[in-house]
Amino acid sequence: MADGKLKLYGVAASTCTGRVLVTLFEKGVEDFELKVVNVRKGEGKTPEHKSLQPFGLIPVLQDGDLTLFESRAIIRYIANKFEGQGTPIYGATPIERALVEQWLEVEAQNFNGACKDALKYAAASPVDEEKLAQSLEKFGKVLDIYEARLATTQFLAGDFISLADLSHLTTGWKLFDKYKKGSVCFDGRPHVKAWWESISSRPAWKRVLEMI
Amino acid sequence: MADGKLKLYGVAASTCTGRVLVTLFEKGVEDFELKVVNVRKGEGKTPEHKSLQPFGLIPVLQDGDLTLFESRAIIRYIANKFEGQGTPIYGATPIERALVEQWLEVEAQNFNGACKDALKYAAASPVDEEKLAQSLEKFGKVLDIYEARLATTQFLAGDFISLADLSHLTTGWKLFDKYKKGSVCFDGRPHVKAWWESISSRPAWKRVLEMI
Ligand SMILES: N[C@@H](CCC(=O)N[C@@H](CS)C(=O)NCC(=O)O)C(=O)O
Ligand SMILES: N[C@@H](CCC(=O)N[C@@H](CS)C(=O)NCC(=O)O)C(=O)O
Repeated sequence: MADGKLKLYGVAASTCTGRVLVTLFEKGVEDFELKVVNVRKGEGKTPEHKSLQPFGLIPVLQDGDLTLFESRAIIRYIANKFEGQGTPIYGATPIERALVEQWLEVEAQNFNGACKDALKYAAASPVDEEKLAQSLEKFGKVLDIYEARLATTQFLAGDFISLADLSHLTTGWKLFDKYKKGSVCFDGRPHVKAWWESISSRPAWKRVLEMI
Repeated sequence: MADGKLKLYGVAASTCTGRVLVTLFEKGVEDFELKVVNVRKGEGKTPEHKSLQPFGLIPVLQDGDLTLFESRAIIRYIANKFEGQGTPIYGATPIERALVEQWLEVEAQNFNGACKDALKYAAASPVDEEKLAQSLEKFGKVLDIYEARLATTQFLAGDFISLADLSHLTTGWKLFDKYKKGSVCFDGRPHVKAWWESISSRPAWKRVLEMI
């Protein structure tokens, strides 16, 4: 089974799979295979896929005998495994590590839900402008905390890009760039805007976009 | 500022603070100070507390110059800092570590929300039995996946107790033991029941209960 090549099950366009892809590229990992599991076609719910991911979701990473799911567990594993190559993204000291974990939790617990709520309205057609505006206002409350943080450090965990920043790219991109419905979020939040421009211009992220 | 003593801001009875307390005790850390922030009395929303936790929530850990929030970031920090003492709870190999992270994510992303939903109905008075039953059924779908996992390993990440298990104690305890409304969840799920009995009988957890 262990042929040495990482296998990533998912689809590049899904936010959870994209989170893993950008981490792989940022760490300079090229030798992996993307095994497409098209969840829209129900391929997540097959017994075969559920034997890898019991919730029937993507992504899943296989590395030899290890089968791992949950996108944010996978990116931590990649950051550890490839610690010595690519961009250092998991903190160089215990304090940096702690702050990467803190902001990765904030992404998962606060940003992700609020951004996906707004996305639901942004992606609908026709767009319910009132509901979209309400959801963006709620999302803005999270971003206010980002604005205050990013006024003091270049990236979330400090003056270095980390897993915490990268983890925002896939959901943020859909709202800000794909559906172009989030620009109001940048009004009055210049540091969030600069941060977004900085992280979304990473070559690693451009590589993911080419796959979508 | 750095007087060497850890400071934990929160209240023992809150699920997020309890998650940190049980981790401290499991790691044999006794030399910390609990600084009570009574969020029910609005003490989370003071400018002073918000300078530590910008969302106005508990818990917060201070260790010298480090101020850290998000309960699951805090427990990871404690597990790393006190790696050499107490119970080993963060995995001894890269694969174990990955599985601790996976199940900690499952706790945060699946168990926590479904359990708190059920808790909302379990703690109400009078109890809306129909809504409670519906929420327990939904929660049970998550527990089905735990049952399958725990039929193969003693704890979530493997045959060792870890952060992933401990992180379930505070929310699970409220539903199963405090409000005694979750016993139906154990019907037909003997491995979940045995796991729950095992983790909730830890001396570290009993210590937390004494503080509630
Ligand atoms: N917490 C999980 C969430 C996984 C998840 O929700 N994946 C989505 C794609 S982003 C999926 O598989 N959706 C298909 C479905 O819901 O059936 C993770 O981060 O991996
Ligand atoms: N994701 C955060 C959640 C923190 C949280 O919701 N804390 C609750 C107590 S369990 C709180 O402070 N509630 C007070 C409030 O909502 O005002 C963590 O895990 O630390």
